[in-house]
Parts: sequence; structure tokens; C-alpha cells
Amino acid sequence: MTATAAGASGEERFIAALRSIATDPAARGLADDAAELKVGGATLIVTHDMMVEGVHWLRGQDMADVAWKLVAVNLSDLAAKAARPVALMLGYTLGDAREDARFAEGLREAVTTFGVPLLGGDTVAAPSGSARAVGLTAIGEATATPSPARADAKAGEALWVTGTIGNALAGYEALVAGDFGPASLSYRRPRPRIAEGLALAGIVSAMMDISDGLLLDASRMADASGTTIAIDCAAVPIHPALTDRALEAMTWGDDYQLLFTLLPGAEPPVTATRIGIVHPRGVHALLLDGAPLPMGQVLGYRHTNT
Amino acid sequence: MTATAAGASGEERFIAALRSIATDPAARGLADDAAELKVGGATLIVTHDMMVEGVHWLRGQDMADVAWKLVAVNLSDLAAKAARPVALMLGYTLGDAREDARFAEGLREAVTTFGVPLLGGDTVAAPSGSARAVGLTAIGEATATPSPARADAKAGEALWVTGTIGNALAGYEALVAGDFGPASLSYRRPRPRIAEGLALAGIVSAMMDISDGLLLDASRMADASGTTIAIDCAAVPIHPALTDRALEAMTWGDDYQLLFTLLPGAEPPVTATRIGIVHPRGVHALLLDGAPLPMGQVLGYRHTNT
Repeated sequence: MTATAAGASGEERFIAALRSIATDPAARGLADDAAELKVGGATLIVTHDMMVEGVHWLRGQDMADVAWKLVAVNLSDLAAKAARPVALMLGYTLGDAREDARFAEGLREAVTTFGVPLLGGDTVAAPSGSARAVGLTAIGEATATPSPARADAKAGEALWVTGTIGNALAGYEALVAGDFGPASLSYRRPRPRIAEGLALAGIVSAMMDISDGLLLDASRMADASGTTIAIDCAAVPIHPALTDRALEAMTWGDDYQLLFTLLPGAEPPVTATRIGIVHPRGVHALLLDGAPLPMGQVLGYRHTNT
Repeated sequence: MTATAAGASGEERFIAALRSIATDPAARGLADDAAELKVGGATLIVTHDMMVEGVHWLRGQDMADVAWKLVAVNLSDLAAKAARPVALMLGYTLGDAREDARFAEGLREAVTTFGVPLLGGDTVAAPSGSARAVGLTAIGEATATPSPARADAKAGEALWVTGTIGNALAGYEALVAGDFGPASLSYRRPRPRIAEGLALAGIVSAMMDISDGLLLDASRMADASGTTIAIDCAAVPIHPALTDRALEAMTWGDDYQLLFTLLPGAEPPVTATRIGIVHPRGVHALLLDGAPLPMGQVLGYRHTNT
């Protein structure tokens, strides 16, 4: 369960109310990226993410990119659980016909690229002038039981990350500079690490996807695990254009890489980089090069995760 | 897959585009209330319905009722497929704190009443002043394989309906008259026919829920089945307060009863009324007391079903 827009007390109360409703163990206390559900011998991983015009995308943005991102963020949650995607259900608020056509085109490209079927959903109209909302439910089949969770990092384990950090920031800056081509693809068309997640099933201890920034998500893993995570900044693979802005890259979201822990000495079966170590819980959730972050340092994108 | 707001050509093109994407057999061509998905030995029924402020509910309406209805309409889709509900995923756009608290309260009452766990979802903010959207995915486990579909009515079979028709209309009129108590409950708090749906598994030929009006939904069953459905008006159980407005009751939505067909002579294991018969397809999808409906007669609530 994730909640966008930080810290409004009304929202916190609402999330607390939901948590008191979602008492089934499968809900995992709404503390993880996805729910785990056993049905008739199968273990399903289920996630639902929404995007809202004016919040998650800007009016005028290419709706094909919005559709792609909606699919990608949901599949990234499944990847973090080492789940094989099996179905998508769409909730869509209609806009103008041209935008709807672009959305459908991006959706087609995403489901084709990631090989996951769209099974149905609902299409609604909204009052004129309203911000539109779209939602997607992704259902996956677990390939490891229990599926990896962010709460399972243990002291002594090594911290690893797939890919490079800052790709989305670099793509965003290209887009803002007017490049609607390949240079902005890493922002417009993120690639969830589905294959990597599946390859890591049964091997990792903790795993989660990096949606809101490496530092914020690593601190969440530490908090959920009751550990302290120490990151070696020099080891973090940063996008080549951002090496002099590494801290910014590590606090920017939308990279959708996988962050995971392995037993010391173990090597992952996927391309990944060892960037830190898990310690017993100390005063701070996160250490950067052995020191806590400065007071007021922003760790990541403005979400509260619940 | 259902689409609210009738017939805009942009919407029709969008739905057509979705249908060309949703080519997996589990999507059933987006022609049914829910998708059927096989995963690891289990057969799942999955549905997703959205509701939008200003379209599906009015600003100022009790959000507890909105939450209840969101759960009920999704569970009604599962009931029509004889599926046992196993999980709900919520997508929620925050409003003011008092409304959010009422929504959570109605959600709690619904999931408790219907015994289905809320497993997670997403909570988002919307730009100020925007109409809010809420979405729910309901996952059920099929109890009959294949699960009942609206397309399976066969000539010679009898048409049956659970409960009485017009309950929602009567409740709506009570609400409009200022009765926020029991008299309006049938509109504010519809009861999906989950137990009846389960009891009918393996017994019915065709089945669907009545969400948009008996006549409209019966005509959809006829169209999907390639049959003509003949309804005997005198046999239709109408809410006692509406017996002199039976046609209006039969064209009003939100009753969430189950409409199904049985072999001639068979009796259902649930309380239900035989209201008609299935004929080979003639010129008209629907006959009322042996005659087609007058040109221009509204069959049901303003939805286009896709």
C-alpha cells in the first residue's frame, strides 16, 4: 500500500483506518509493495497503483507514456516479489479521443513488451475539467514462497542493486530540455526488472523495488527489517551523466531497479552491484560512507509509504 | 468490461482499441462482467469497477454508502460468476478527512458483512476541486468451470430472477424524499447475491447480475447468447410500492439481483422467480408479453456495456 502526497494528518488517519480493516495476513499490514494471497494451491501477488493527472502526470503529457508507466510501476512491484505477471485489470477515466487513443497505444506497447495480458477493467467518464485518474491491478504468480519482502534484511548480509541509479533523472532532464526521443526514454518508459526478480527468487533475503529514490527505499528496508543499512557511495553505480550529482541521483525516484540483500560472499545470478552492508540496528536507519545523513537531507521522492 | 456514459464515438474507439489489446481468452473479449484466469490450478474470477464523484455519486453524499456500493457492485460481478470472493484491492483518491473517515467506515462495514478481506491498494491525492475517483478490484475463486456467462442462454430454457425488481428505485425515491434510514437502504446499501450465486454454480446455463435494469440486462443476455428472451411481465416480482410502475422498475438499475436460465422444468436451489423463456433468435432481442418493446423505449440505465 503506498500513499502519495506526504503526511497530511487526514491521510494518515485514513491509512490507519484501512490498516485496521486489512487485518488478513495476506495484506501484510499494508506494509509491503504487494499482497500475497493463496488461492486453491496457487500463491498470488497482487498490487494496485493509481496515477492522477496533475499529480503523477501533467496535462498535455503523452498519454502513451502514462499508460506505459502505469503498467511498469505495477509490474515493478511484482518483480520485487519475484512474481511472474499473469494479468492486468485497468480502471480508466476517459479524456479526449486523441489522448485516449495514445493511452491505448502505450498500453498495447507495454503489455506486448512485458508479455502480460490485459484481462478487463472499467472505463468511466469524469465531469468536464476534472483531473483524470487511472488505476491498474497487476496479478502475479509467486515463484518463491514466502515471496521476498523488504522486512527480511539481516545483519551481515550484503546490499545489492540492479542497473544504474539516476537513469530516470537523466531521462527527465532530457525531456524537460525538449528531447522526446531516446534520451528521455529512461524516464518516460521505465523497464521493470521482471526477469531479474524471477532469477533472484529463493536467493535473496530482502527485496524491494526502488520507486522513490535509493536512499529513501533503502531506509525503508532498514526500518522494516529492524536493521541499519550502510551504503558505500563510491560503489553505487550512477548514471554516467550524473556522477558529479550522485547524491541527487540517489534521492530521485522512478528508477525501478531492484534493491536486495544476499548472504555475505554470495553472488547474484543477475547483473547487479554490491553497494553496502546490513548492520544490526543502530541509531540511524541509514549510513552513507559510515555516517548518518545530515539533518534535513531529503531521502527521496515525496511519497509516504504506509 | 463495462463503460459508463453512453456511446461517445471516442469512447467506442477506445473500447475497441482495448478489445484489440485484450486478446487473451481469459479476457472473454471484454464481453462479460469479469475475467476468468487460471493460475497454478486455481481458476480466478477478476473484476474491476470504478466510481467517479459527480457521475456515480454526488458531492455531499455519505461516503460510507459510496464505499459500500463500490464493494457491492464488484462482489455482484463475482456472484454472477458463482465465484467465492477472496480479496479486494482498493484505489482511493483522498478527499477531506471527514469524508475519508466515512469511506473507511463504510468499507469496514462492507468487508465485514460480506466476509472478504481487503488486501491493499493505493491512496492518492488529486488536484484541489477535482472530482474524485475510486476503484476496486475484486478477486474470486471460481466454483464452477467454466464459470457461468451471460452468453450461455439456450432456446427452451426458462429465465429466472432472484429477489424483487425495483428495490433500488424505491430506496432512491425514499432517499430523495429525505429518508436516510432503512427505507433508502436498498439503494444506499445493495446486497450482492453472493450466496445465491454460489448455490447456482453448475446448475445455471447463463447467469449475469442486473446492474443496469432488468430489461437492458436481459436484452444483453439475449444478444450475447444469440437468442430472444421473452419476459412475462405479470410474473416479474416487483417491489410492492411500485406495482403500478412496473415498467419503470424493470428499466431502473442498481438492483444487483441475479438473472439466470435453467433447463425447462428445473427448479433453482435458491429463492427465485421464473419470469420468462428463451427462444431461438428472432428479429428482436427482447419480447415483453410476446411483443417487442415500443421504439424509443428506454431499456435501462445510461451505460454502454462493452
